[in-house]
Amino acid sequence: MDFFEAVRIRRSVRSYTDESVPEEVMERALDAALLAPNSSNMQTWGFYWVRSPREKGLLVQACLNQGAARTARELLVVVAEPRRWKENRNEMLRILTGNQAPQFALDYYSKLIPFTYGFRWIAPLKWLLFGVVGWFRPTPRRPWSGRDIEEVSIKSAALASENFMLAISAQGFSTCPMEGFDEARVRRLLGLTRADRVVMVISVGRENPARGVWGPQIRFPRDKFIKRV
Amino acid sequence: MDFFEAVRIRRSVRSYTDESVPEEVMERALDAALLAPNSSNMQTWGFYWVRSPREKGLLVQACLNQGAARTARELLVVVAEPRRWKENRNEMLRILTGNQAPQFALDYYSKLIPFTYGFRWIAPLKWLLFGVVGWFRPTPRRPWSGRDIEEVSIKSAALASENFMLAISAQGFSTCPMEGFDEARVRRLLGLTRADRVVMVISVGRENPARGVWGPQIRFPRDKFIKRV
Repeated sequence: MDFFEAVRIRRSVRSYTDESVPEEVMERALDAALLAPNSSNMQTWGFYWVRSPREKGLLVQACLNQGAARTARELLVVVAEPRRWKENRNEMLRILTGNQAPQFALDYYSKLIPFTYGFRWIAPLKWLLFGVVGWFRPTPRRPWSGRDIEEVSIKSAALASENFMLAISAQGFSTCPMEGFDEARVRRLLGLTRADRVVMVISVGRENPARGVWGPQIRFPRDKFIKRV
Repeated sequence: MDFFEAVRIRRSVRSYTDESVPEEVMERALDAALLAPNSSNMQTWGFYWVRSPREKGLLVQACLNQGAARTARELLVVVAEPRRWKENRNEMLRILTGNQAPQFALDYYSKLIPFTYGFRWIAPLKWLLFGVVGWFRPTPRRPWSGRDIEEVSIKSAALASENFMLAISAQGFSTCPMEGFDEARVRRLLGLTRADRVVMVISVGRENPARGVWGPQIRFPRDKFIKRV
């Protein structure tokens, strides 16, 4: 399907028919998700395709039993997993060394990344240091704290989520991204730690033509959001 | 262009040729950005297309003078603006009332949204209340604090950013999402408040074939990220 057509037809669908979603449709959309740009290519994300009846039932409950989850054929949980930074950093270094990458790329992963993702216990010190330096010249102001690093990871996971949702639309099925869920229960269900953040739960299925979408798509005038500077 | 082709060819490009980007290409990609799904359709986002030579120069500096910004033909700053929640909530209510929307939709915007986005000064109380209720039944654990609400808004802005980047790829040009910037300086340049969060700066241009990308696209094995539950 044409790219702009996929963007245009994507709507958040809150009721699905009982038609099942072929595995290939899900797999192809997951592959598209993994191609999203992400912070420093650290790929600190996880995609949990919840299929077992028991787990799926619990996930629907954790999504507050909303229709978009209850009637879904498939459910995907997108998770930001910043704790994976060290393992992925090592993997990046290994691959780059094998590819004879330039020194600046190796330095990036061997020096800058550990300084940014690690040493969180000196976050206030980093904040102070870069605040003072920033007085004199342009300086990155974040990420320093654990929450800052979560935020970076959440952003990347959101980029991947959008690839996934558009890829489902491009194959004629529909999605609904949900943020109304019980994060503690979803974490427990998936065996995640408190360091993991559930970014969104995405339901997938064939749109129920009678009540899949709630009405016409509402967007405020574009001039409200787009400013030329 | 085919959707999957646009996803496949998108790479983060760090050096551009001096070919200019037609305005229509940017406008079409901005329109795609505005169609992204977003939290409660609150559209708390802003897109600053920085074109004036002076402001562009300052923005390149604020992006630490990195090649992806310095050689860019166009620069877009994507901002999360959660402070717009009240205005946008009112607008949603006005439109829904005009469309004779069902009562539950009106209640959502007149009751749930103000309770979630507002009353941040009782965030610890909300946290406690929903923590206790959550002991007994599935309950949303966030957003309560200002930072939680920022996070929701950042996620939506990231979804829009991905639409924008793919839309540029689908039209044959390239992008690079940048997170290495001086947020304080970008805010000052755009006249933003401290309540606004700069989500990413996206550069746009024609890829320099000689050194646009740094090497082959690296992704770790998919089984590392995709789990069937």
